Amino acid sequence: MNKPAKTEPNAIATRAQDYSQWYLDVIKKATLAEHSAVRGCMVIRPHGYAIWEKMQRELDDRFKATGHENAYFPLFIPLSFLAKEEKHASGFAKECAVITHHRLKSINGEIVPDPESKLEEPLVVRPTSETIIWDQYKNWIQSYRDLPLLINQWANVVRWEMRTRLFLRTAEFLWQEGHTAHATEVEALEETARMLEVYAEFSENVMAVPVIKGHKTEGERFAGALDTLCIEGMMQDGKALQMGTSHYLGQNFSKAADVKFQNKDGQLEYVYATSWGVSTRLVGALIMTHSDDAGLVLPPKLAPIQVVIVPIYKSDEERAKTVEEAKKVFAELKALGVAVKLDDRDGIMPGAKYYEWEGKGVPLRIEIGPKDLEKGSLCVARRFVSDIPGETPEAQRKRRKAFLPRAEAIASIVPTLEAMQKELLEKARAFRTARTRTIDKLEDYEKFFKDEGGGFAWVHWAGTPAQEEEMAKRFETSIRCLPFEDQVPAEARGEGKCILTGQPSKLRVLMAKSY
Amino acid sequence: MNKPAKTEPNAIATRAQDYSQWYLDVIKKATLAEHSAVRGCMVIRPHGYAIWEKMQRELDDRFKATGHENAYFPLFIPLSFLAKEEKHASGFAKECAVITHHRLKSINGEIVPDPESKLEEPLVVRPTSETIIWDQYKNWIQSYRDLPLLINQWANVVRWEMRTRLFLRTAEFLWQEGHTAHATEVEALEETARMLEVYAEFSENVMAVPVIKGHKTEGERFAGALDTLCIEGMMQDGKALQMGTSHYLGQNFSKAADVKFQNKDGQLEYVYATSWGVSTRLVGALIMTHSDDAGLVLPPKLAPIQVVIVPIYKSDEERAKTVEEAKKVFAELKALGVAVKLDDRDGIMPGAKYYEWEGKGVPLRIEIGPKDLEKGSLCVARRFVSDIPGETPEAQRKRRKAFLPRAEAIASIVPTLEAMQKELLEKARAFRTARTRTIDKLEDYEKFFKDEGGGFAWVHWAGTPAQEEEMAKRFETSIRCLPFEDQVPAEARGEGKCILTGQPSKLRVLMAKSY
Repeated sequence: MNKPAKTEPNAIATRAQDYSQWYLDVIKKATLAEHSAVRGCMVIRPHGYAIWEKMQRELDDRFKATGHENAYFPLFIPLSFLAKEEKHASGFAKECAVITHHRLKSINGEIVPDPESKLEEPLVVRPTSETIIWDQYKNWIQSYRDLPLLINQWANVVRWEMRTRLFLRTAEFLWQEGHTAHATEVEALEETARMLEVYAEFSENVMAVPVIKGHKTEGERFAGALDTLCIEGMMQDGKALQMGTSHYLGQNFSKAADVKFQNKDGQLEYVYATSWGVSTRLVGALIMTHSDDAGLVLPPKLAPIQVVIVPIYKSDEERAKTVEEAKKVFAELKALGVAVKLDDRDGIMPGAKYYEWEGKGVPLRIEIGPKDLEKGSLCVARRFVSDIPGETPEAQRKRRKAFLPRAEAIASIVPTLEAMQKELLEKARAFRTARTRTIDKLEDYEKFFKDEGGGFAWVHWAGTPAQEEEMAKRFETSIRCLPFEDQVPAEARGEGKCILTGQPSKLRVLMAKSY
Repeated sequence: MNKPAKTEPNAIATRAQDYSQWYLDVIKKATLAEHSAVRGCMVIRPHGYAIWEKMQRELDDRFKATGHENAYFPLFIPLSFLAKEEKHASGFAKECAVITHHRLKSINGEIVPDPESKLEEPLVVRPTSETIIWDQYKNWIQSYRDLPLLINQWANVVRWEMRTRLFLRTAEFLWQEGHTAHATEVEALEETARMLEVYAEFSENVMAVPVIKGHKTEGERFAGALDTLCIEGMMQDGKALQMGTSHYLGQNFSKAADVKFQNKDGQLEYVYATSWGVSTRLVGALIMTHSDDAGLVLPPKLAPIQVVIVPIYKSDEERAKTVEEAKKVFAELKALGVAVKLDDRDGIMPGAKYYEWEGKGVPLRIEIGPKDLEKGSLCVARRFVSDIPGETPEAQRKRRKAFLPRAEAIASIVPTLEAMQKELLEKARAFRTARTRTIDKLEDYEKFFKDEGGGFAWVHWAGTPAQEEEMAKRFETSIRCLPFEDQVPAEARGEGKCILTGQPSKLRVLMAKSY
C-alpha cells in the first residue's frame, strides 16, 4: 500500500463572490475544457467531451425518431456562395476564417504561405452550412416526390469571436445543423416548430433545464431567416442563455441556389427550407444551471459516471476486503445498466477522492469501509439534495448520506438517480420562478435589474428597434423572445401598455440580461 | 393505388470493363457520396454516412475497451507549431489549407478578405493534430502518475490533394486520431502494436476485409515517426489499399513541445508518444473489396439496413393484406434486433425496389406477395451467395432465393446474416489467395504484374530506396510493408536473395500496386 499523497485543493470561487470566476473554476475543477494556444479555440477535455457525447446520443436519437438522416458536407465554402444570399453574407462576413493559400514554403528559413499557391477564389471555413448544402440539394431535388428532405449534420463551425468564453462563445465550436427542404410553406413551418419542440423537450427532460419558447425579434433573427424560434434558459446569475434556435427560411436559400421542384400540379416552384441547431454551448448552460460552490452538478441522464465507488481502508488486509466488495457492487450496478466507476486508486485519501468526484459532478458515491462490511451495509452519498428552506449547510450535508442495508442500497440506486433527475429540474424551475417578475412600471423594472439581481421580466412592449437599444443601454436588457402564448405565466397574460412608450400591446415579451 | 412509375436504371460499368468507372458507379447507385462545388471536398450522403457511423461505433467501442477517452482539439494550427518538428513540417507543408484573414469586406461591390483583418501568424487547417495536441499535453503531464494518457479524437482533417477520388483521397476527410503519452519506450511500442491489432481485428471481423500487418519502409513512414505500422487490404483489381496506420513517435513530439515528466526515480524525462488513425477511406476499402457488378455489397455488421421487406400486390385489396403482413414481419424482426426497413412506397414496381436496395447493398430482402399469404410462407432473397465454381449467373440467382414457411423464415434471418458476414470474409480471403504469389525471378514478377493482373507478391528484397524507385517505374509496384513474421504465408518464409540485386534477405516483403 502506497502512502496516501496529499492533494492540492482546486479551490472554487463562490457564486456570490464572483460568478464569472466561479464558472471558470467549476470547468477547471471538473476538467471539462481549457483554452488552447489558438486564439479563441478551446480544448474539450475527456470529461467535458463525454458529456457532449451523451447529449449527442440523446439528440441524435430524437432527430432519427423524427425522420432525419445524418450526412456530411464540406468544411469550406467558396466566397461567392456566401455572397449569394445578401443578408446571410452580411451577417457572417465579419467573423470568418478565410483561406487564401493551399501550400507552405520555406523562404529565407521562414515558413510562409507559398505565394504561388494563392487560391483563385478564397474559401471560408463554414460559419454555418446553408449555402453549401443548398448548392448540393439542387442535385437531389427535382420533384415533390423527393420532398421532404430531412438532413442533419454533426460538425465543427467557426465564427471568429474576439471575446471568447469557454463553451459559451468560442471561435470554433461543435454543433449539429439540421437542413430540411419541403414542398409547402405549411410543412416547413411545422418542421420549424417540431424541431424547437425537440430541443425544448431535450432541454427539460435530459438537461433538466426549463426553457421559455418563442420567436426572436426581427433584429435577432438568423441572417437570411424569415422567422427564428428559440428556447431561452435562465442561468444562476439570472441571465438568459439562448440554448437552441430553429429557423424558417422560406424560399430565400432555394432562390439563392436556384432549387426548384415540380409540384403535384406539374408546376415548378422554389423549395421551402428550415434549419436548426444546438451546440457545445449547451454544456455551458448545463454548468451554469445546476452547479454549486463545490463544483459541477450533473443530471444523471448526462453524467458520464453516475455512481462512483470508493473503498476505504487503513491496511493492506482492509484494502483487499473492501476492494473485493467494491468489485462486487460494481458488477451488480453495471448489470443494472448504471454507468459506474470503481475508484480503487491506491495512495489517494478517500477524502481527496470524494472531493475530486464531487467536483466532476458524479451524482452518487458509494463508500465501502471495514465497518460497512461487518454490518452488511453501504453508504450512499448524493451529490445534491433538494433544498429545505432555512437548513444549514451542515445539516444538508448530513442529509446527503444514507447508510443502508446492502440489498436495499443497491436497489435504491436507479430510483435515486431518477429522482435526482426530477429534483434538478424542479430546483431549476423554482429558481426561475423566484427570479421572474411581471412588471408594468419602468421604475420597478429598474429596481429589479439594478437592485434585486434581475432575472426574467414579463413586460408589455410596443417600442421601435431604437427604443430596444435604449433599454439595452439603460438596463443591459434585451427582448429574449416574443413568447408562444402558452409560455406566458397566467398572471402575465392579457393586453396592456408598453412599459416604455405606453402604446397598446397584446402580449408581454420576455426581457432579461443575456449571454 | 398510384400507377407504378417507370424508373430509369442507374447503370453500372462492370469491373471487367472499367474498374475505375465501376467504383464510381457503385457509389452513385448506392447514393454514398458525391463531389461538391469545393475542389477536392466530397459530400457524404446519408447512406454513406450511416455506414461510417456504424464503423465509428464499432471502433469507438474498441478504443474505450482498451482504455481510451475521446476529447476535442482545435481545427487550426499556428504555423510556428507545425514548424517545430522538422520532418513533420516538410511532410505536410505541401498540402495545407492556410488561413490568413479573419474577416470579409465589400470593396467596390466585391466581397474580399478584409486587408485589415490579416492575421499576425497564419493558421493551418489541421492535416493531423500531433503538434497542437502535444502543446496541450504540456499542461496535463507532470509526473509518471499522469501517464499513460490515452486520448482519441474524431475529427475532420484537410490535406490539399490535387487528384482526388471519392473516399480514397479527398482534400477534407473524416477520421479518428489517437494520441497517447507513455512513461517508457516499451509501453509506447506496446500501444502502437495494440492499436494496429484493434484495426486488424475490426477490419477482418467487422468489415470482412482480410489484411496483412507490417511495418512501412523508411520512405513511407509518417512524417515525424520512428516506426509506422500498417494494415494492407487487397482490392478487387489486385491493388493494395493502406487501411490504417499506427505510429511509434518516440520522443520527437514531446521534445518539440517540451513535454517532460518526473519518472519514478524523480528524474525528468521526455514522454514517449504514439499516434494512430483510420479514416473515411475505409468506406472506399469496403466498397472495393465486396461490391459486384450489381452494386454495393455490405457485410451485415456495417449495413445500415440489414433486411428490407417489400410487399407485392396488384390491387388495393392485395396491398392492404400484404402490407399488413409486412408490418407484422417488420415488428418481429425489429424485436430480434435486426435493422429492418419496410418499403411500402406505393407507385414503385417491386422490381425497381429490388434493384434499388440491391444497389444499396442491403444483405437480405423479404418479398411478401398474395401467394405467400395463402401458403403462410415468405421469400427470403440474399444479396449474395458464396461462389460455386462453374455456376452460371442464372443458377446462382436462383440459389439466392429461398421460399420458407413463415416461422422458419423469421428464425433464419439472424443466423443467415451471421453466415453472410463470415462468407464475405472467406470470399475476400479466397480472392486474395488466388491473387497472391511467392516470386523469386524478376521475369515472373513482370509477368504477374503485366500479364496476369497482378496482386500481392511476396519477394525477397535488399535494395536501396533508389532501387525501390526503379521497381516503381518499371512495374508501378512498391513495398506495401515489411510484414510481421507470422503474416508471411508458410511457403514464402525463410531466407533468400533479393529479387533485383541478388543480395541476401532474411524475410520477404509484400510488393503490390497500390492506391
